[in-house]
Amino acid sequence: MTRPSIADIAAEVRSGAVSAQSIVEDAVRRHEAGTLGAYIVFDADGARRQAAEVDRAVSRGRDPGPLAGVTVSVKDLYGVEGLPIWAGTKRELPVEWRREGFLVRALRRLGAVIVGKTHTVELAFGGVGLNPNTGTPVNPWDDRAHRAPGGSSSGAGVSLWEGSARIALGSDTGGSVRIPAAATGVVGHRQTTGRWPTTGVVPLSTTLDTVGLLTHTAEDSRYAFAVIDRLAGHRPPAETEGPRVSGIAGLRIGIPRRGLWQESDAGIAGVARDALAEPEGGGAQILEIDAPELREAGERYLAGELVQPERAESLERHLPGWTSILDPTVGKRLESARAVSAVDYVAILRLRRRLSARLHARMEADKVELLATPTLPITPPPLSALSELDAYRAVNRDMLYGTGPASMLDMCAVSLPAGLDDHGMPVGLQLIGRTGTDHRLLARAVAAEAVLGTNLERLGVPPRVA
Amino acid sequence: MTRPSIADIAAEVRSGAVSAQSIVEDAVRRHEAGTLGAYIVFDADGARRQAAEVDRAVSRGRDPGPLAGVTVSVKDLYGVEGLPIWAGTKRELPVEWRREGFLVRALRRLGAVIVGKTHTVELAFGGVGLNPNTGTPVNPWDDRAHRAPGGSSSGAGVSLWEGSARIALGSDTGGSVRIPAAATGVVGHRQTTGRWPTTGVVPLSTTLDTVGLLTHTAEDSRYAFAVIDRLAGHRPPAETEGPRVSGIAGLRIGIPRRGLWQESDAGIAGVARDALAEPEGGGAQILEIDAPELREAGERYLAGELVQPERAESLERHLPGWTSILDPTVGKRLESARAVSAVDYVAILRLRRRLSARLHARMEADKVELLATPTLPITPPPLSALSELDAYRAVNRDMLYGTGPASMLDMCAVSLPAGLDDHGMPVGLQLIGRTGTDHRLLARAVAAEAVLGTNLERLGVPPRVA
Repeated sequence: MTRPSIADIAAEVRSGAVSAQSIVEDAVRRHEAGTLGAYIVFDADGARRQAAEVDRAVSRGRDPGPLAGVTVSVKDLYGVEGLPIWAGTKRELPVEWRREGFLVRALRRLGAVIVGKTHTVELAFGGVGLNPNTGTPVNPWDDRAHRAPGGSSSGAGVSLWEGSARIALGSDTGGSVRIPAAATGVVGHRQTTGRWPTTGVVPLSTTLDTVGLLTHTAEDSRYAFAVIDRLAGHRPPAETEGPRVSGIAGLRIGIPRRGLWQESDAGIAGVARDALAEPEGGGAQILEIDAPELREAGERYLAGELVQPERAESLERHLPGWTSILDPTVGKRLESARAVSAVDYVAILRLRRRLSARLHARMEADKVELLATPTLPITPPPLSALSELDAYRAVNRDMLYGTGPASMLDMCAVSLPAGLDDHGMPVGLQLIGRTGTDHRLLARAVAAEAVLGTNLERLGVPPRVA
Repeated sequence: MTRPSIADIAAEVRSGAVSAQSIVEDAVRRHEAGTLGAYIVFDADGARRQAAEVDRAVSRGRDPGPLAGVTVSVKDLYGVEGLPIWAGTKRELPVEWRREGFLVRALRRLGAVIVGKTHTVELAFGGVGLNPNTGTPVNPWDDRAHRAPGGSSSGAGVSLWEGSARIALGSDTGGSVRIPAAATGVVGHRQTTGRWPTTGVVPLSTTLDTVGLLTHTAEDSRYAFAVIDRLAGHRPPAETEGPRVSGIAGLRIGIPRRGLWQESDAGIAGVARDALAEPEGGGAQILEIDAPELREAGERYLAGELVQPERAESLERHLPGWTSILDPTVGKRLESARAVSAVDYVAILRLRRRLSARLHARMEADKVELLATPTLPITPPPLSALSELDAYRAVNRDMLYGTGPASMLDMCAVSLPAGLDDHGMPVGLQLIGRTGTDHRLLARAVAAEAVLGTNLERLGVPPRVA
């Protein structure tokens, strides 16, 4: 299957060669024919109106923008004017939560077309992707079992495969963009915390929340990130445009000596490591390094002293009373938040800074630009294996184990598809960059994608879609 | 009494007209003749060696720097090589705490001479200035009673009056530079949090600690701040040099409508308000504005949910076991820190940001450059009134009530002497500037000082010194 890039799509729409309306009709058709259940609300009429406006601009000689006609699915944690919001809970949120924030507005301004809202884990609190209230999208890579799509942006990757969206908005606190990207075989970029405003999104963690994109390819992610990032007031560093980082030669990638590589299922680590052999053949250097900070940060993320009080505080402030209606998979874990003392919270904030400084210093000393790990240490499980709360919790910890560290350490990271494991499920390769190096990270991801043997043409399409 | 400015002193030393050694001998003489008890350790020999080095540089044609020969007293919370450190506790701290950080090193590099270490409240935890372990300096403005010198930098202002130092290093978390400045009739500047590194100082609050200077005049504070600030990597904004802020005309000063002005002792508010009449006569506009954020921030500072967990965490991390040796005035308050939940701490951090944003927006809308309040709402009390723990606590709250708000709101502030109250004790006028406007604030303070009628020549000298 050959899929045009979103840059190609936008170019064709801007030139008038293809109409945004025809793109939306195609998206609607695919959505109506699909059975993956990515959306909690699909807005065909709204999408048609937006597309018509894009086409009208073109016909009047106005430029609709660098994302003209590109379809976008929005995680139900975001406000979208005119569409209801549940944030994955049993109850619709008050209408003020429909208000659009930075990212949705930026996309509209750039000519993109919002097609609907995708499922999320309840209040984005979980990495598996389950939602007993509003529904759990189907992971398209297993045509017999209903496997977890990854969370918390559970409908995001699935919406890309349905063909109804070319950009999927997710949000990543401890991994909620990278995890569904890895689980569904697409690309997910967690930006450096604070890079884009998180306005218009139900807030959960004051120090970890980020908004971000899932796309089919790193090339798409890089293109969309660049045009949106300008609206956030940033300029790309000059060198990411030049030859120095456009290729893979000379790139030094560190493989943490202990931790995720050993702790992942053997088949998964093997696929991820094999994928790295290809950039290695292209002149990249893969070297083992010590990075104990990743593991410590990950353990502390999972211990919850940071994120649980922040979530509890956000809920008390923004959605008082909501805790009582939450599913046990979410609500139970929030109960312990009040028991965390402020002294311990202060200590965690301090630890984060120290670990981050240490790891950055190591990367500097070792001249390592990126760290690589498997994104997920386990295969996304069938839902049938998760009915017991204890089983769910263990799997949820595993799903978050690989992505929490980069969040805690204020780094940026991208998950790329690296191949299929023994279950025929996608394996994600996580590349982690230093704080603030998002442009460079995406440039490297594009270069890696070109040689990884992992781009989607070679991976193929999931059986439920093929 | 006419006192040369520190700029004049440094110019004379640099030119060779006056030797640093003669300045130090004068300081030693005054210290030995004095009875105010500002220092926990006075280092005459060390000061003489430093002065000899300055003079040697001059005699060899090298410039010793813009603070050449200027005497400096250092709060005992700072590390100074070769001198013991107690941080106001009963026990000497491990030798690694003698290590010098940014500010002490900067002063040495600029040619200043460190003469000794001044008393501090135990672990800087209190605004009155009492220290039952190491001693409470005498406030020189009352020659009969031993009145509180203000804290926590309790020896700082007193060392200036003793004549043994022309710059006194303090540290300001919730007011510990401004409070002793107001209580002893000198100038104290709390800088915007984070402006200078706080390295080499026993850390207490991760989000509020600042280092800073007390001097006799705003002119001295401005001069010393500017030369040190360059070493911290900052450049002054161009406009603070120009005519626009060098005078007082057109300056708009906001007087918060409720709060400190009403809650201060009537005599104190009267003296502070009278002082403002003089810049008003010089063309400044004094206008009443609403600023409820100051009061809310102050209440929350005193409630302790922010600062107590931060202090407890710092102690547990840096000085484990130290809590058990603390005086009840300090230790009792730390016991409650563990009871503060992380959820409440997160809420306070969020509240700080919100209140600060609101107050800054108000000042912008009202075109108000500075806010003015009395620094202290009460007269520094005699020690005899503080023997009961409850009485101490009530007075301690009062002493911190005026200064906590600017700390919590990430603003900068300066306390200027405004006159004497009915007890013959100094009254401080606090000018509060927006985040990061330290240079402008000090430029305005210099202009205000020139017209306030509050400069020290007119105030006179304290009875214990005269």
